[in-house]
Amino acid sequence: MNGRLRDDEVVVGGDARQRYYDSSGYGRPLGGQEIALSRVEAAYLLFKGDIDSVVRDGSASRGESDDEEMGFRAFLADAGGEIVARFLVYADLRDRGFYLSPDREGWVDAPRSNDDFVVYPRGKGPWDDAVLYRIRVVGERADVSAEELGDAVLAVVDEESEITYLETDEADLRGSSGTDHPHGVAADLLDDRVLVWDPPAALHERGFYGQPLDARDGDRNRSGVLQLSLVEAAYLAREGVLSLDAETVRERGREVERGRFDRRLRVYRALRERGIVPKTGFKFGADFRTYADVESVDDLGHSECLVRVLPADHVFSPRDLSLDVRLAHGVRKRMIFALVGPNEQITDWISVSRLTP
Amino acid sequence: MNGRLRDDEVVVGGDARQRYYDSSGYGRPLGGQEIALSRVEAAYLLFKGDIDSVVRDGSASRGESDDEEMGFRAFLADAGGEIVARFLVYADLRDRGFYLSPDREGWVDAPRSNDDFVVYPRGKGPWDDAVLYRIRVVGERADVSAEELGDAVLAVVDEESEITYLETDEADLRGSSGTDHPHGVAADLLDDRVLVWDPPAALHERGFYGQPLDARDGDRNRSGVLQLSLVEAAYLAREGVLSLDAETVRERGREVERGRFDRRLRVYRALRERGIVPKTGFKFGADFRTYADVESVDDLGHSECLVRVLPADHVFSPRDLSLDVRLAHGVRKRMIFALVGPNEQITDWISVSRLTP
Repeated sequence: MNGRLRDDEVVVGGDARQRYYDSSGYGRPLGGQEIALSRVEAAYLLFKGDIDSVVRDGSASRGESDDEEMGFRAFLADAGGEIVARFLVYADLRDRGFYLSPDREGWVDAPRSNDDFVVYPRGKGPWDDAVLYRIRVVGERADVSAEELGDAVLAVVDEESEITYLETDEADLRGSSGTDHPHGVAADLLDDRVLVWDPPAALHERGFYGQPLDARDGDRNRSGVLQLSLVEAAYLAREGVLSLDAETVRERGREVERGRFDRRLRVYRALRERGIVPKTGFKFGADFRTYADVESVDDLGHSECLVRVLPADHVFSPRDLSLDVRLAHGVRKRMIFALVGPNEQITDWISVSRLTP
Repeated sequence: MNGRLRDDEVVVGGDARQRYYDSSGYGRPLGGQEIALSRVEAAYLLFKGDIDSVVRDGSASRGESDDEEMGFRAFLADAGGEIVARFLVYADLRDRGFYLSPDREGWVDAPRSNDDFVVYPRGKGPWDDAVLYRIRVVGERADVSAEELGDAVLAVVDEESEITYLETDEADLRGSSGTDHPHGVAADLLDDRVLVWDPPAALHERGFYGQPLDARDGDRNRSGVLQLSLVEAAYLAREGVLSLDAETVRERGREVERGRFDRRLRVYRALRERGIVPKTGFKFGADFRTYADVESVDDLGHSECLVRVLPADHVFSPRDLSLDVRLAHGVRKRMIFALVGPNEQITDWISVSRLTP
């Protein structure tokens, strides 16, 4: 079976509709037995030997004699390197037993220009309505805008052509941690931390604020000095819990972290307001790790999420994304990105996780 | 027992030499029973209640009446916030049962200005010659210059005053993977990868170059097309293995990665020359993962290291360092940083790992 390259599609006649579309979900029907294949679909069928060759449409009628029958190698070279990454992802998903279509007009209803493929659930195909994933193919060197995440699966093709699938979703974080606090507690701002010399027990024990100065596991001296981070202290000062000037603490935070501090404080407050306790995520390279349901520090569960705070216009390198997601996966936490706009609006909470299709 | 603050030291008399230095490794002997404590040591003894208070030296003789006896809180405030981080590390190591001294003139022989503490092996102290660690204390917001790593333990104090110890060493990587290659193999440069249409089997099977296009685990089609990354192809082209122009491949690499490509290629070559096989570290957020002893891809062991390639003048954020080291630890690999100078000299190989003192 041969195909004819017409513009950006490969047209196949004969029994193509029955053979490729009806029975295997390739291409889109043109009427009768004819179908159109995208270049990626055609490359895959050439690679598999299910199409023998492709010729440029009309070349014979134009009397061109140098127009060859293209096999897989020539077809790839003709298409230009830019289809290689999409071909690799298409082939990977096909080899895993999925049917999928280009996410474009003629192939799917309501195509999304940002995405490359629509993947159907196993056993389903382009003649069904069900969609399993919308896939966006990116090379490992591409720029990935944070604002474009949240409703697609990224298929990252690395330099050795291995594919990592990253599922991105909107995240809705909720918890049940308490928020009743003492008021007017004395504290000292010392460099980039705050010391509370005579802390009410509830502050750490129930609110999980700060860290006792004299804490060894199994030997927590709750009556002793409590250390607070600047972000904890700035939040508590504004709530009236500490008798420190909130703006002074915030200024100190800006001195040591610049704009990042305000973004982190904004997200810290939002998490507390949702009943979630944020603690430092430093050991995981993140801004926060979070606990959704803290009743007492004596009965802390596993922290559920790692949160990285980013400006809303952040552009990811896929490699950094891969690093964060891999680490979170290894410690059994969800990786969450909190995006903060220029007016301290949180524009989005996005979760990213590894996916094995 | 009380101390007198003189310049940057606290002088203690009475039976101080016997009580603090001989029996517990605090301070440095001044002659007779007198010893001098660094501010950090004095703060710790005040915190523990082993010194009652500190007064400013000579304040009584100067007739100053407002000079108070400082307890722990006043002493910390007087010292300024900058000693807090060092105090936390000092206290942590003391609480773990170590003796340690400030890494400075008068306390230790050959002090190193970059480091903060000399830690003695358990059971040893300042009167012995043995040194277990040289500790450098940094806040999580500090800048850590890559060139200064390799011979000290970083004690990173995070915003919640938790301490992460990162041991840094010079790394000497060696392997036994073979280097005999075929020559003049035809290949196509397609966008940001290279396809070898008829690869000699040894290229992948013994050299572990590239990735078969039609590879599914357990069903490797070795006779098929082989995909090479740009860095693999640039190396192989220069070695004469590929019949591609080496400079053309390198130019393509620079187009897609800018200066990073030349640094990565330099490190790739160095690893191959040491008998080590580098493969992409993308899934781990690194440049390479490495295999020291590849005989055949059918018998691949676990990769031993993750390598991140950096310009020699790179400055780490401790948080990024923590992220890399944590991930490497989780997947049981050594984290290695390869530093490349402006003339493509590899100036250093540094390993960084978590340490529990």
